[in-house]
Amino acid sequence: MRNIKLTIAYDGTNYAGWQVQKVKSKVPARSGSAFGGKSQKLKTVQETIEKALEKILQEKVKLTASGRTDSGVHAIGQVANFKTDSRLFPDNIQKALNSSLPKDIVVKKVEDVALEFHARYSATSKSYRYTILNSRFRSPFDRHYAAFISYHLDASLMQDAAVHLVGRHDFRSFQAKAGRSNSTRTIKSLGVKRRGRFIYIDIEADGFLYNMVRNIVGTLIEVGRGKLGANDVMKILKAKKRSLAGPTALPEGLCLVRVRYTQNKNFLK
Amino acid sequence: MRNIKLTIAYDGTNYAGWQVQKVKSKVPARSGSAFGGKSQKLKTVQETIEKALEKILQEKVKLTASGRTDSGVHAIGQVANFKTDSRLFPDNIQKALNSSLPKDIVVKKVEDVALEFHARYSATSKSYRYTILNSRFRSPFDRHYAAFISYHLDASLMQDAAVHLVGRHDFRSFQAKAGRSNSTRTIKSLGVKRRGRFIYIDIEADGFLYNMVRNIVGTLIEVGRGKLGANDVMKILKAKKRSLAGPTALPEGLCLVRVRYTQNKNFLK
Repeated sequence: MRNIKLTIAYDGTNYAGWQVQKVKSKVPARSGSAFGGKSQKLKTVQETIEKALEKILQEKVKLTASGRTDSGVHAIGQVANFKTDSRLFPDNIQKALNSSLPKDIVVKKVEDVALEFHARYSATSKSYRYTILNSRFRSPFDRHYAAFISYHLDASLMQDAAVHLVGRHDFRSFQAKAGRSNSTRTIKSLGVKRRGRFIYIDIEADGFLYNMVRNIVGTLIEVGRGKLGANDVMKILKAKKRSLAGPTALPEGLCLVRVRYTQNKNFLK
Repeated sequence: MRNIKLTIAYDGTNYAGWQVQKVKSKVPARSGSAFGGKSQKLKTVQETIEKALEKILQEKVKLTASGRTDSGVHAIGQVANFKTDSRLFPDNIQKALNSSLPKDIVVKKVEDVALEFHARYSATSKSYRYTILNSRFRSPFDRHYAAFISYHLDASLMQDAAVHLVGRHDFRSFQAKAGRSNSTRTIKSLGVKRRGRFIYIDIEADGFLYNMVRNIVGTLIEVGRGKLGANDVMKILKAKKRSLAGPTALPEGLCLVRVRYTQNKNFLK
């Protein structure tokens, strides 16, 4: 028995997310392709890759990811693993996958890892980037990869407020569905920067609550437009009330950039 | 009667081009959305904008563009004009257009111009950028905006060959359907540069023959992979035979960047 680790990039636009979410979000579920405009049941990224793997390996495969991503959310470094009895070389699995997968999913790396490796439980941190197109006009080319905001945002105000969220806190105020188990997480870094018409929000944490990145971004956007101050963000965090924070930012701006695993637990064979 | 000039950006992926081409190309016509994967008759960019304008102006409108773009080809600075009796301010036409057009078409500028202005005949030059993703792996995010080439291309060899095409020449060898009228054009500049995994080919000319940019790019790609030398490109140009040049490069890498009009004939009111 082998354990195989995949590093995957995908354009989430035409998918119902990595896997169908069981948690109910405030955000209405998306149905129908954002491109085709047709109402149709979207596939998940997970089932698309599992089907391709099953054809290649000639056996049933169960993929475990570092975490789910919502419909419309992208990844350049999603990690998933699966167990197999196949004797195919990793390079050959990669080539076969990339030639059978649709062009909006690319497998960037295939590695043999120790049997204990678990894409979700072994992860020590995850990094996301949220991209905002902050300009007068939409860009036809960025419409699926950036949230469009036409009123001016002050990125340095957003950065000042973001500082208050870094560290170990109870992030209940930024959780889509509260009231469940432990909502304490550690944000290792949270940076906001402007590059021309774009604003990038980069966030790394040891784990994320459901919709946590998009709720933090939605709150920072309120700061950027002057509706909230840095102190308000501190108060919202301490209040542990979802209703005080800003709205959930649009999914298209969000991208899972990287999942880290400790070096000594790198599980590489 | 007024003459209105539009500057338009569009993602050509889901369109049958600016207007349905009458000239038959060697390249098979695309049917069906590249995103949705459904077989369906694609609309043209022209008819999409005309319909939006007709709703706003409450009159029939005929758009004239600087030139057609093929299916899958993009624009960030297409120019078109139309005559109207409407008394709406340009800014209001722009706002109304951008709120009624699909998100893959954006009108960047609306201006009143002199009645003699003609988006095609008044143009003095057009600039295109061709983007190649030259890396081992496809990128899910660039699949509609760059031609993917997985073998290494030497951009400096391509630049050396490109130099021979600059100037006033008969470009019959790079014309999709030859045998017609005058095929002499002036290429004002043609630059090839690498930026990381991307290669950009920027070309400006007083006019282009049908598929000329994509045929030049297809030939330069043959140079970049070592199949043709700079001297071969000179020979191909002089031979005036389409069969000698490289294949037509894929449409998705191509983008109409800018159309220039002389300053004294700027036609601005």
